[in-house]
Amino acid sequence: MTDQTLGQKAAENLETVRTKKPLIHNITNFVVMNYTANALLACGASPVMAHAPEEVEEMVSFAGALVLNIGTLSTSWVDAMLIAGKKANELKIPIILDPVGSGATRLRTESAKRLINELSVSVIRGNASEVLSLAREGARTKGVDSIHRVDEAEAAALALARDLDATLAITGPVDLITDGKRVCRVLNGHELMGFVTGTGCTATALIGAFLSVDREPVNATATALAYFGLAGERAAAHSEGPGSFQIALLDALFRMDKETLRIGARIEDNKEAQGMGNQA
Amino acid sequence: MTDQTLGQKAAENLETVRTKKPLIHNITNFVVMNYTANALLACGASPVMAHAPEEVEEMVSFAGALVLNIGTLSTSWVDAMLIAGKKANELKIPIILDPVGSGATRLRTESAKRLINELSVSVIRGNASEVLSLAREGARTKGVDSIHRVDEAEAAALALARDLDATLAITGPVDLITDGKRVCRVLNGHELMGFVTGTGCTATALIGAFLSVDREPVNATATALAYFGLAGERAAAHSEGPGSFQIALLDALFRMDKETLRIGARIEDNKEAQGMGNQA
Amino acid sequence: MTDQTLGQKAAENLETVRTKKPLIHNITNFVVMNYTANALLACGASPVMAHAPEEVEEMVSFAGALVLNIGTLSTSWVDAMLIAGKKANELKIPIILDPVGSGATRLRTESAKRLINELSVSVIRGNASEVLSLAREGARTKGVDSIHRVDEAEAAALALARDLDATLAITGPVDLITDGKRVCRVLNGHELMGFVTGTGCTATALIGAFLSVDREPVNATATALAYFGLAGERAAAHSEGPGSFQIALLDALFRMDKETLRIGARIEDNKEAQGMGNQA
Repeated sequence: MTDQTLGQKAAENLETVRTKKPLIHNITNFVVMNYTANALLACGASPVMAHAPEEVEEMVSFAGALVLNIGTLSTSWVDAMLIAGKKANELKIPIILDPVGSGATRLRTESAKRLINELSVSVIRGNASEVLSLAREGARTKGVDSIHRVDEAEAAALALARDLDATLAITGPVDLITDGKRVCRVLNGHELMGFVTGTGCTATALIGAFLSVDREPVNATATALAYFGLAGERAAAHSEGPGSFQIALLDALFRMDKETLRIGARIEDNKEAQGMGNQA
Repeated sequence: MTDQTLGQKAAENLETVRTKKPLIHNITNFVVMNYTANALLACGASPVMAHAPEEVEEMVSFAGALVLNIGTLSTSWVDAMLIAGKKANELKIPIILDPVGSGATRLRTESAKRLINELSVSVIRGNASEVLSLAREGARTKGVDSIHRVDEAEAAALALARDLDATLAITGPVDLITDGKRVCRVLNGHELMGFVTGTGCTATALIGAFLSVDREPVNATATALAYFGLAGERAAAHSEGPGSFQIALLDALFRMDKETLRIGARIEDNKEAQGMGNQA
Repeated sequence: MTDQTLGQKAAENLETVRTKKPLIHNITNFVVMNYTANALLACGASPVMAHAPEEVEEMVSFAGALVLNIGTLSTSWVDAMLIAGKKANELKIPIILDPVGSGATRLRTESAKRLINELSVSVIRGNASEVLSLAREGARTKGVDSIHRVDEAEAAALALARDLDATLAITGPVDLITDGKRVCRVLNGHELMGFVTGTGCTATALIGAFLSVDREPVNATATALAYFGLAGERAAAHSEGPGSFQIALLDALFRMDKETLRIGARIEDNKEAQGMGNQA
């Protein structure tokens, strides 16, 4: 059953972003820089992209959230992410990590783990294999290859969230969000999102915007994903394919009104999840 | 009162760009590379993006203008900008600087100032805080924080333009262009431009295109900004939000005919500005 | 006369890409990363962009093809291209090279030649001056400046393809594809493609997708270019200018059905080309 409190919360978070226009500092990949900046603007936030080690501490100090994304990674960018992230932690600015490609190459997996180990990260968003690749060596979390059923993915995510002390968002046809105790599911979205590059990265950036105004990570993440997914549903209704969808999605993010989001957000909130996790 | 001579000049400059298809060499930021290249193509110019120190001298030698933009800056890019810029100066190819983020971080402010000090820059375009951050230490130009009224911004810009020996363009709802003597204002534009990333950078690139065919910097800058702003007005009429606006803007740049631009350009030319500047 | 076998082949290749969803590993330029990733997704392939020397060997080992593109080049990227390319050669994964700007600067020409010399490249796609700049010193291939007629370009391309032992695609209003023996021409396309940045790079990426499922390079290249050109024709019918065209092109790539492509592909296949080449 969809949680109406979270629909209301989604509407409030969107309104607060539009009012406060938080600066969101992104250290992100070359493929999505333009699109995520435009999505943040459409949402009402104020994006900045900056990666030079000489300036990331200053830049992040103005920010409401720091988005770290390891697509098109190179090692010098990891260094900049660590410098920015340590300053963000010092200033209590929330960090969102998108571990693009973690699990696919050693560089990505090790870089993502290094960021998680050396920084206090609030939220990590990826697909199932990216997120579950982050399990520590020797952890009892199952590897992604051994996940065959949705409930196994949920149990693994719960255990991993507790182990990493972070909120995890595994996005897909249904998004799963957990901090290791509570589990939310977001049912909004559209299959055309899978045909546009960087929609995952955009979801991460929008979580950053919501987290800058709502410091409860599960609420911020679930409401941001519902907002993005609902915009996707509305954009798809006006699209001829992934090109026009990509553009209509920016329009839909911009045009979404509070009431539409409040009613349209389909978020399930299972406050009993801790019990379920223990059964894994 | 709108200056009709400048409307005519705008139309001529656009026509000349379309006829000559000048190569515009951009050393610019990752966020806007694609969009500014597309805007230059839509305008009729021929964009090239190249930043390797090994090739920027050769590349700029083919160019009608050099666009330097310090978004997503790193120090090695400043070195490439200096190499390209010195060659451009040697060959009398005009340079346009976009000091993205100057005033926000030391790296940006110092890099922008270094480019201005070591190169002869024709035009500098930014928002008020970016442009006014470029004042030299000890200059009597007021800092941006002390600017509270439009006429104060104008006085500061006039003094700064004289001090830097460059044409400044402070863009916003109304654009202010001055070389320290003359002041023009461009009234064209649309508020949706503020919801698309890189519209400022695109304005800078288009100034580059116009400057390559019109070496009088105030005329080139004011006419380019009128062209861009008018395209924005026309694009907004066909847009559902910032996504469709961004695309319609490229179409409008491409479809703009000379007569529409001649009539639609709203440029005020105050040839008496020097007197006003002296009152500062 | 249009070859109907190749129309059928184009339809089959598209269908196979959509079924197999091959991973296409791109080491490409900053300007086109987003657009080429979206074009590959629209086509049915799965794009990845990765350039770090630490991970390119692992990444390419999952790929169906490796796309190397030297736009916005810097020397460290050439090193990564060589590492990835050697692994691709070892694993028999085909390599497609886009020598953006070769002939314009020494860095570009020498980098393209180095890639060709040190790697076994299946297909090279560029405009006439880019491709013909790749002739080895002392080769009897005519330089681009000495090409004044279409048949001279064909003769030069045939000789160069034999000398480089690669399939060459010279794209323009009519595309010429040759492996030094056979010559195909693709007549599909639309002039608006010249007003969108990175359409050439996108053609190259799509050749990569087709080559991953059809290892005969002339067939793969000609059918990919027919698919892309036909999508361009269909997109142009719904466009107001280059902005809307760019978006409609992604939609058209996505919506193209097998039968439309089979009938609409206009590929001429001259199996007698070797004789013609000898006349040069």
